[in-house]
Amino acid sequence: MDSETVQATFLFVIEVIGTIAFAISGIRLAATKKFDWFGAYTVGLVTAIGGGTLRDLLLDCTVFWMETWWYLAVTALSLAAVIVFRTFLVRRERILLMFDSIGLALFCVIGIEKTIHFGYPMWVAGIMGVITGAFGGVIRDILINEEPIIFRKDIYATACIAGAVVYWLTSLLVPTLPIVPPLACAAVVILLRVLALRYSLHLPVLIHRD
Amino acid sequence: MDSETVQATFLFVIEVIGTIAFAISGIRLAATKKFDWFGAYTVGLVTAIGGGTLRDLLLDCTVFWMETWWYLAVTALSLAAVIVFRTFLVRRERILLMFDSIGLALFCVIGIEKTIHFGYPMWVAGIMGVITGAFGGVIRDILINEEPIIFRKDIYATACIAGAVVYWLTSLLVPTLPIVPPLACAAVVILLRVLALRYSLHLPVLIHRD
Amino acid sequence: MDSETVQATFLFVIEVIGTIAFAISGIRLAATKKFDWFGAYTVGLVTAIGGGTLRDLLLDCTVFWMETWWYLAVTALSLAAVIVFRTFLVRRERILLMFDSIGLALFCVIGIEKTIHFGYPMWVAGIMGVITGAFGGVIRDILINEEPIIFRKDIYATACIAGAVVYWLTSLLVPTLPIVPPLACAAVVILLRVLALRYSLHLPVLIHRD
Repeated sequence: MDSETVQATFLFVIEVIGTIAFAISGIRLAATKKFDWFGAYTVGLVTAIGGGTLRDLLLDCTVFWMETWWYLAVTALSLAAVIVFRTFLVRRERILLMFDSIGLALFCVIGIEKTIHFGYPMWVAGIMGVITGAFGGVIRDILINEEPIIFRKDIYATACIAGAVVYWLTSLLVPTLPIVPPLACAAVVILLRVLALRYSLHLPVLIHRD
Repeated sequence: MDSETVQATFLFVIEVIGTIAFAISGIRLAATKKFDWFGAYTVGLVTAIGGGTLRDLLLDCTVFWMETWWYLAVTALSLAAVIVFRTFLVRRERILLMFDSIGLALFCVIGIEKTIHFGYPMWVAGIMGVITGAFGGVIRDILINEEPIIFRKDIYATACIAGAVVYWLTSLLVPTLPIVPPLACAAVVILLRVLALRYSLHLPVLIHRD
Repeated sequence: MDSETVQATFLFVIEVIGTIAFAISGIRLAATKKFDWFGAYTVGLVTAIGGGTLRDLLLDCTVFWMETWWYLAVTALSLAAVIVFRTFLVRRERILLMFDSIGLALFCVIGIEKTIHFGYPMWVAGIMGVITGAFGGVIRDILINEEPIIFRKDIYATACIAGAVVYWLTSLLVPTLPIVPPLACAAVVILLRVLALRYSLHLPVLIHRD
């Protein structure tokens, strides 16, 4: 394999890992609501592809999952895995969280680069990075009728925002090395997620007084 | 009338029946939440046209209800019917369920054929059949702030999936008779709905253990 | 400044006022749910731009807030204002409601005129006026997991509908004066909001009996 094929394969493997992690998070939440298999599959699928779907509708381009059936297949495998290996998965909470962070970082980078590719300015690309990474989970929480968890708990979408800022700064600092911004962005997202989970970091809460 | 006009008229009548059934289901659920007339009308309209709207946004084509005002008019008539004949409708639960199944079958076929018409493969068409038939009800349940009922109860979206599979198989088996796949698809959807309601069939539930 | 610049500046100021009022309404509701700063910002932003985003997706045109960053900036200022001047804002409930009504009226007019500009008939334009003015609040209520308030309480979306009807009638009556329909529409929306708030007007509720 030449280096381009290696890189494409590497990105594909990462995207599968991210899709599985997102789908499993949706399917497990659906299980807490006693949804049936169809409901669990749909919630898992929407968690995995919902952010990218909203991005593609806003960018007015072909919705990415309509061009290949493997997102549907990976979600089906995730559902099968949850049904068969349930107890196993519960004990692997930390691995799932790590996969989820990797998925978040990659989805964020994909959202940023796709938007730049369509000629939008960096601030739009940053928003699309946040949407691609974090809004599948928002639609998931709407479907299971809960308040979106990323609006209340720890650093999640904010990690994408920080990643987008780093993407922008590195693209200004080293315009000749196009590989640096996506790597720096992904590293920042993952680092912030790890720190947030280890030290229970969270944003200030808006206090309500009437 | 020639045979083509007869067929078009027949499809139009079926679509009106389906729209009424979907709109009434939304309006009656809105009534349980004490929504006002505008809220009930909006929920009824979204139930009837929400699935097709999501389909058309994903297909990136003109949203179907923006080309003719009769979907709005039929929903207004449904609202009037619920206000005037409320007790009458409650006693006709079985007729409404039959109308709903006919609507589900037709909306599913419309979603499949429109997607194929735009050149997408069969698996995308199947998804659009499910979305057209069943996701108006999902958006309805989001608007009334309930967990989507099709994620938890009996065979509904699954009937559309089975219908789409039958559509695909019959289109392979009898490629020379384009009338067979839609009829077989609709028959399977209606049959599965009738069986699901009579024998309380449902999909397995995903059990949650932590 | 010539008269056209004056008019554009006037409209811009009104739109900023409307955006601030909508964003603050979202941010304050997010505060009652103990959302963090990101959650509050997102809910505020969606309240301000959600209706117009849905409109632009349905019209299949470039989403308006992707062409200028000032909607994001105005929402950030609104969040800062809520954090810093919280008690002050609580005491200015009436001013916020007045701003909200002005925003509703302007957003409704923008939705109508943009739709007519794309060649759609008046009934589609009316729907887009309602969506632009009132559906940011619906998406807000979905995000904070509450039943949409405009489906149950006082005259809000209905004011937009009445405004759209007046827009249509005045455009038929005085086709030579294109300034009359938007002004008449906005006046009717604001008047109906003021009357609804002062006299607690509301639509009939759909009563549920089984």
